[in-house]
Amino acid sequence: MTLRNNFSAGPSALPPAVIERIRDDLPEWRQQGASIMEISHRGAAFGELVEEIDARMRRLLSLPAHYQILWMQGGASSQFSLVPMNLGFATGGATAAGGYLVTGAWSSKAFETAAYHQQPQLIASSAPDFHRVMPNKEWASLDGLAYCHVTANETIHGVQLHQDIDTGAVPLVVDSSSDFLSRPPIFQNFGLMYAGAQKNLGPAGVTVVIVREDLLERVPKQLAPMFNYQVMAQKKSLYNTPPVFSWYVCGLVLEWLEEQGGLAAINQRNVEKALLVYNEIGASGFYGNEVEIAARSLMNIPIRIHDPALEPVFLKEAEAAGFIGLKGHRSVGGLRVSLYNAVSLEQTRALVQFMQHFRDQHG
Amino acid sequence: MTLRNNFSAGPSALPPAVIERIRDDLPEWRQQGASIMEISHRGAAFGELVEEIDARMRRLLSLPAHYQILWMQGGASSQFSLVPMNLGFATGGATAAGGYLVTGAWSSKAFETAAYHQQPQLIASSAPDFHRVMPNKEWASLDGLAYCHVTANETIHGVQLHQDIDTGAVPLVVDSSSDFLSRPPIFQNFGLMYAGAQKNLGPAGVTVVIVREDLLERVPKQLAPMFNYQVMAQKKSLYNTPPVFSWYVCGLVLEWLEEQGGLAAINQRNVEKALLVYNEIGASGFYGNEVEIAARSLMNIPIRIHDPALEPVFLKEAEAAGFIGLKGHRSVGGLRVSLYNAVSLEQTRALVQFMQHFRDQHG
Repeated sequence: MTLRNNFSAGPSALPPAVIERIRDDLPEWRQQGASIMEISHRGAAFGELVEEIDARMRRLLSLPAHYQILWMQGGASSQFSLVPMNLGFATGGATAAGGYLVTGAWSSKAFETAAYHQQPQLIASSAPDFHRVMPNKEWASLDGLAYCHVTANETIHGVQLHQDIDTGAVPLVVDSSSDFLSRPPIFQNFGLMYAGAQKNLGPAGVTVVIVREDLLERVPKQLAPMFNYQVMAQKKSLYNTPPVFSWYVCGLVLEWLEEQGGLAAINQRNVEKALLVYNEIGASGFYGNEVEIAARSLMNIPIRIHDPALEPVFLKEAEAAGFIGLKGHRSVGGLRVSLYNAVSLEQTRALVQFMQHFRDQHG
Repeated sequence: MTLRNNFSAGPSALPPAVIERIRDDLPEWRQQGASIMEISHRGAAFGELVEEIDARMRRLLSLPAHYQILWMQGGASSQFSLVPMNLGFATGGATAAGGYLVTGAWSSKAFETAAYHQQPQLIASSAPDFHRVMPNKEWASLDGLAYCHVTANETIHGVQLHQDIDTGAVPLVVDSSSDFLSRPPIFQNFGLMYAGAQKNLGPAGVTVVIVREDLLERVPKQLAPMFNYQVMAQKKSLYNTPPVFSWYVCGLVLEWLEEQGGLAAINQRNVEKALLVYNEIGASGFYGNEVEIAARSLMNIPIRIHDPALEPVFLKEAEAAGFIGLKGHRSVGGLRVSLYNAVSLEQTRALVQFMQHFRDQHG
């Protein structure tokens, strides 16, 4: 067995201590006579676990009581539909468009998917600049919009929002799939935030949706239960059998996060990791990242080598040296370093040393 | 550690050999340098696994090539919506009702959920008989229906279909969540079959949908991708990040099923297990099951004790003796014995002995 340094963009590395706990909890979890996968989700033991997880999440995020935490299935891609289906309504119930800030591939997909349900409005887009900057042209007015949707971090283009967005009375909806729990919350009065688990939170198969309670009143009564935020909130995410195992692993990750010192401590480490990699890019002239400084992601760093023919060589040598998950997304090519919470400072230093070594060899 | 005999209705017991394999595959799966939860679902290793699983499923079910196997999220409860959203259309595209055979709590829920999307038609219902028989009154005509939906096994009421249903040219849609892979297929030319994993197939969080290819042409183009069977088929269930871990465990269960000798062998054992329990019920006069003989389920056996005050005593003493998951569903009370594939003949014999002992003590 040779565990490797995993820089995958997602599903991504979990903390080794969490993997150890999963192993220790087989074949029996908490004296239940069976594993977590084999017990009733309506039983007392699972109910206690769910409450522990809710409390940990609230502590970590300092989440006010008027937000509800839902645990859903279908990934962030399902939320691309569920947000307009649940919230695409003005007070009074008339269908109203959501507005979308397009900053990369994922916000584009959210925008395109919303068009299956309503006529979403484009607030601004960085597409003309190949998503290398934050949209800096005049933004469209938010007047009359049902909500304003932004993507906190774009895994493919490597851009990230680093400050709150004032949307006035229009609820802010944040897709935080790829930077959830990577730093203290920066969106102070958001309406809804969602995140697929498989980056910083846990294994694929569960999606967290955090919703301000007043928005639940907008949800149309005729919306089918499995798509309906209000039903999920009323049933405490147990309308049907939930993805028990994924939910449980998220709980272990939250416990690990608290042991690490919480989000301020994890952010300190994440900043340091990203600076190490960006520093090597900046210093070298060998590696390049085309995103403007102010919009660069601390989570996902797309990298081009000045001679693209060296990129497959890099990937091959990196894998031989024990570094995996470094291939750029198929839509943009190149390399990509993902630095989610479970990637350690030591692993990042080792990667940067490898990058330096490769540059010395091929520069 | 004390593993117990787990007769839970779901999530239910997994084969001990599968739990062992999951443990052995941590922290590293197939020399990938990381666990199954931490690698890319677009990589070669996961792609190979997906093909292995597809092949195993086809072998076990003797599935003809014109059926596609989809792996989706959201449980069978999501399929209650997705079936009418995808298939509730006549040739030509006009909205057309699905017909529903109501045989218990789950088919009722499927019928009620369809009403969020169309005007489903009731074909027949056993509700007037408290779901203790198969609906035996005149069935409504299937003429002009988009599909005919049946629930193969009802976990709460303990009734099961034991023969194919001839629906002529109207596609048969089968919710087989709770008896999937428990016996050789009895539905020979079904249109679509779905099953939440957490009974005989694997852990909660993934749902299998098997669809006859010609039905994919009915799916409306304007249906959003995450709800769209055609998109899921085209993308081979990888439109977005799938529930990787649950899917992988299903693969281990399929492997175990093949090692057991396939569905004919598992059916032999399942029949024997059920007969042992029904025999004790029939022999005793102490325990009762109100379902007519021809409709009794081999998977879930609801049981009442002649003196209901003894039921909580039974549950308490059973748990102390190492038998868990025997509480009846909260909507009907009493006891329930679930005999999914992973429950062994030995465990069933032990339970029947306990039932006899309890009857001797309290009869």
